[in-house]
Amino acid sequence: MKYRGNAYRLLESYDVKVGDRIVVKTRDNEYRGILMPRYELADDLHLVIKLRNGYNVGISVDEILSILLEERAREKDREEVVIGGREKKEKEEERDGSVSVEHNATRLAMISTGGTIASRIDYRTGGVRAALTAEELYSIVPELSSIAAIDAEVLMQEYSENLTPMHWSIIAERVGEKIYEGYDGIVIAHGTDTMHYTSSALSFALQNLPVPVVLVGAQRSSDRPSSDAAANLIGASLFAANADASGVFIVMHNGKSDDRIAVHIGTRVRKNHTSSRDAFKSIDTEPIALVDVDSSRIDMMLELNVRRRRDKARRPIVRTRFNEHVALIKFYPGLDPSMIEHLISKGYRGLVLEGTGLGHVSKGCFNAIRDAIDSNMLVCMTSQCIWGRLRMTVYETGRDLLSMGVVPLDMLPETALVKVMWVLANSSSMDEAKSMLLSNMAMEFK
Amino acid sequence: MKYRGNAYRLLESYDVKVGDRIVVKTRDNEYRGILMPRYELADDLHLVIKLRNGYNVGISVDEILSILLEERAREKDREEVVIGGREKKEKEEERDGSVSVEHNATRLAMISTGGTIASRIDYRTGGVRAALTAEELYSIVPELSSIAAIDAEVLMQEYSENLTPMHWSIIAERVGEKIYEGYDGIVIAHGTDTMHYTSSALSFALQNLPVPVVLVGAQRSSDRPSSDAAANLIGASLFAANADASGVFIVMHNGKSDDRIAVHIGTRVRKNHTSSRDAFKSIDTEPIALVDVDSSRIDMMLELNVRRRRDKARRPIVRTRFNEHVALIKFYPGLDPSMIEHLISKGYRGLVLEGTGLGHVSKGCFNAIRDAIDSNMLVCMTSQCIWGRLRMTVYETGRDLLSMGVVPLDMLPETALVKVMWVLANSSSMDEAKSMLLSNMAMEFK
Repeated sequence: MKYRGNAYRLLESYDVKVGDRIVVKTRDNEYRGILMPRYELADDLHLVIKLRNGYNVGISVDEILSILLEERAREKDREEVVIGGREKKEKEEERDGSVSVEHNATRLAMISTGGTIASRIDYRTGGVRAALTAEELYSIVPELSSIAAIDAEVLMQEYSENLTPMHWSIIAERVGEKIYEGYDGIVIAHGTDTMHYTSSALSFALQNLPVPVVLVGAQRSSDRPSSDAAANLIGASLFAANADASGVFIVMHNGKSDDRIAVHIGTRVRKNHTSSRDAFKSIDTEPIALVDVDSSRIDMMLELNVRRRRDKARRPIVRTRFNEHVALIKFYPGLDPSMIEHLISKGYRGLVLEGTGLGHVSKGCFNAIRDAIDSNMLVCMTSQCIWGRLRMTVYETGRDLLSMGVVPLDMLPETALVKVMWVLANSSSMDEAKSMLLSNMAMEFK
Repeated sequence: MKYRGNAYRLLESYDVKVGDRIVVKTRDNEYRGILMPRYELADDLHLVIKLRNGYNVGISVDEILSILLEERAREKDREEVVIGGREKKEKEEERDGSVSVEHNATRLAMISTGGTIASRIDYRTGGVRAALTAEELYSIVPELSSIAAIDAEVLMQEYSENLTPMHWSIIAERVGEKIYEGYDGIVIAHGTDTMHYTSSALSFALQNLPVPVVLVGAQRSSDRPSSDAAANLIGASLFAANADASGVFIVMHNGKSDDRIAVHIGTRVRKNHTSSRDAFKSIDTEPIALVDVDSSRIDMMLELNVRRRRDKARRPIVRTRFNEHVALIKFYPGLDPSMIEHLISKGYRGLVLEGTGLGHVSKGCFNAIRDAIDSNMLVCMTSQCIWGRLRMTVYETGRDLLSMGVVPLDMLPETALVKVMWVLANSSSMDEAKSMLLSNMAMEFK
């Protein structure tokens, strides 16, 4: 937990220790906060400062111009910073035999599936390893211990681009078990690339939930300077532990600032930026809540009905199967209808078209679509515009497609794909499937 | 050109005539402007008022509570409103034998390809017909006559979802001819669904342009109340006639207000909303200009280099062929790699993947991608995030794909698709194709 090498020598030359309140000046910035310990595998090239907003920044030793000691830590506080909240509480327990009820009353299950948030680069080997035992979590993000008692486990270690519907089923099963075990909330650490597909999958697979199930990721890994991992984890845990809500959500940075974390409905959110920390956006709706990690305040932005509020007595409906014979095709000028014929020949059961505008594809695709529907394939329409309502009755093209039997799904294409996969695995007839598709099961409709 | 039936009776009861300045009150709104003539095929259920911002609104006769005559038109002005600018100018010519130089100096070619902007619903037959003779244009949007002399023609009549790369070639050929004929600008009326694909296609097919080539559309047809057609046409014509710019652009509403029209770079724009008037957005850049249709002012938002400024002496490079054996596949969890194998078996030459995040697809697709590259297919990567830079060197998945030979294209997926189609039709070797792909030809790179 101690600094080594260059970092150690720098700190010693300024006579500052872990826990002290300091001001670090670099050429471009000035950082004011508490000097945090470095964890076991860290390099010796960075200091870690906890800013007032609860956010840890790593600062390259090479860039540091000066360090000012603002306030020397009391030994008691230094101990708190160094050993992390959890261990401290245990020590307190040992000391006075009592435990603060509010600390232990709330129990969160944290499940890691992989991705940037759950990884730390080992600078010695260059490899990446999952860091999600409760102890490691508390040592990286000590304030988690004041939010809840967290039981952490590594379920899988995959970058999310490698996840498939099979993985969704495994995650859903495990979350279902954790809910039956009585946790007050579930936090799932997940790669960001396909996090919105997984959040849709869990939204359909886990209905009637008693507590919040929150997916959280990071755009930059937790041991890099300017990581969003700590603030996102704190926001996710605050919401999962305390919000009067149930259902599946994605929790990520709300904007460029580090203290506001957004909570998105799992079926209404999309990764809209390759790299920025506020990459995830609610589409055609507001985030359901904003979490201020500085003050721990949760502002609900959307009113939830009773069925969507937290109710630990509620029994979840867990149906975790997905039909993988469902494809998504994004339409474009010149799309070869033989792509659709290929799916028919492979025995596909569902097709989600990502059409243009209000829900259109070219007349050149009509015959293939008719063939697909004749082959008992469920053909559905969404729009590649991303924003705005699907309206297939306005133009001739849309009306023609409707009359062929194309099902309009006024939701995100990614959500529609996942819903068709789930519906086909959980219905016994085409009529039942269509009726399920058109009912609003997880706030997925716009 | 005159009102009939219910509309006629209403106007007569208030003693107002075409050309008068009036205030029309409905339950929800108050409209202040000049009563415009209705064109030939119009129904008798709406009045058309030209607002101060140059924008025509249709108001349902049924909703009108009262009409106030604010200023009676002088007979001279009434004539101007009724017959449209062009005919008036001809009449003036007849009268005094002279023509205002500024009116005839600027010549625009307007080419209609179809879509909402070029259509009027015939309420008697329910059918749609193109309305783009110069006379009809001037009668619908009289202020066009003060911008330039416009030669209008109907090249095709297709909703844009039905356009294919073959249509792009036809449009590019025709625009090329018009440029050689010496026009000061080209305005192309186009359906909005695939307008951004066509603008990319023209950006590659028509390089080194001397003047602006502007695509313009409407989200609501010109004879509907709250149409955006008139303001967009005015904005497009102002920019095409006057801007010190060359290249291919899309011109559409900038926001909810009707007087600000945005000019987007043809390769950096996307239809991001199914129905709103400001559906088109520049991605990871600003609109190149904003046009105020009220004051006719053009504010350039981006600085253009000399090669991108207007220069009528410049000779365009016209290369209008596209290779249709190029596909776009949007990646999603569970994507069947046999979709890629299918393209190999059909002899495809190019594939644009719309990957996740910084430019990823699952390991499950790696073998099919290797097969495609071995079959001499050009396989390129873009990101479905839409915003943000493509960065395939950050994670193992991206590095693996790069080492297989996948070409990273840091541009919009739609633009990348069109560019690969164009490059494969205009290069003689794979090396030449790759080198063209990676050079910034039409401001397409982020």
